[in-house]
Amino acid sequence: MQISRIFAPITNPQTHIPMRREAFKMFLNPGQKEEYKRRHANLFPELRRLLSESGVRNYSIYLDEDTNTLYAYQELEGDGGSQDLGATEICQKWWAYMADIMKTNPDNSPVSIPLPEMFHMD
Amino acid sequence: MQISRIFAPITNPQTHIPMRREAFKMFLNPGQKEEYKRRHANLFPELRRLLSESGVRNYSIYLDEDTNTLYAYQELEGDGGSQDLGATEICQKWWAYMADIMKTNPDNSPVSIPLPEMFHMD
Repeated sequence: MQISRIFAPITNPQTHIPMRREAFKMFLNPGQKEEYKRRHANLFPELRRLLSESGVRNYSIYLDEDTNTLYAYQELEGDGGSQDLGATEICQKWWAYMADIMKTNPDNSPVSIPLPEMFHMD
Repeated sequence: MQISRIFAPITNPQTHIPMRREAFKMFLNPGQKEEYKRRHANLFPELRRLLSESGVRNYSIYLDEDTNTLYAYQELEGDGGSQDLGATEICQKWWAYMADIMKTNPDNSPVSIPLPEMFHMD
């Protein structure tokens, strides 16, 4: 079971569509919890559509309030995420909008660090 | 949409079974990444069965290597997780087994801090 995971693509146990899971962390500026939530409750509809069309599924972001670290979890369907979403105008607009409350790179993208998977159980 | 989420139970978009999502952090002792992975690749089959029967689904654990923080994500089906799994013999056996490589409470349970959800997109 563990070994087959290394060689075979993972399949969503419900839809049987090939997918993969990803987690990463980002950094929120202190005191911006409510503002981050508010902006995400009003995510640009065009960005939501773009993410969805790109295969991004079951995308959740949590906050570690002790360290202002954001933990993101998402599932990527098909070749989801392999497109360079960051090259799109709508994504760059979102990054510029969010840049005042997050730790960012020079191109406004949020500093984002992938996290290795330790365990998974369907 | 956001408002209905507060009052109505969330439903798995694929199975339409009521579920909820949870994330929490735990603390790994330094230098124990490979040991943590190894033990979880060999999770007690009885514990795996107990989790599954308790409604725990899509359970992933990631490691933030900069801080030795473990970040767990899981979905709980039905009234999953409301049972006190910690009262079971198999769970206590697992906690005792894991206690030498994690930050634990006096009863051997891992120190576990829930993380608030900032964003979700199906």
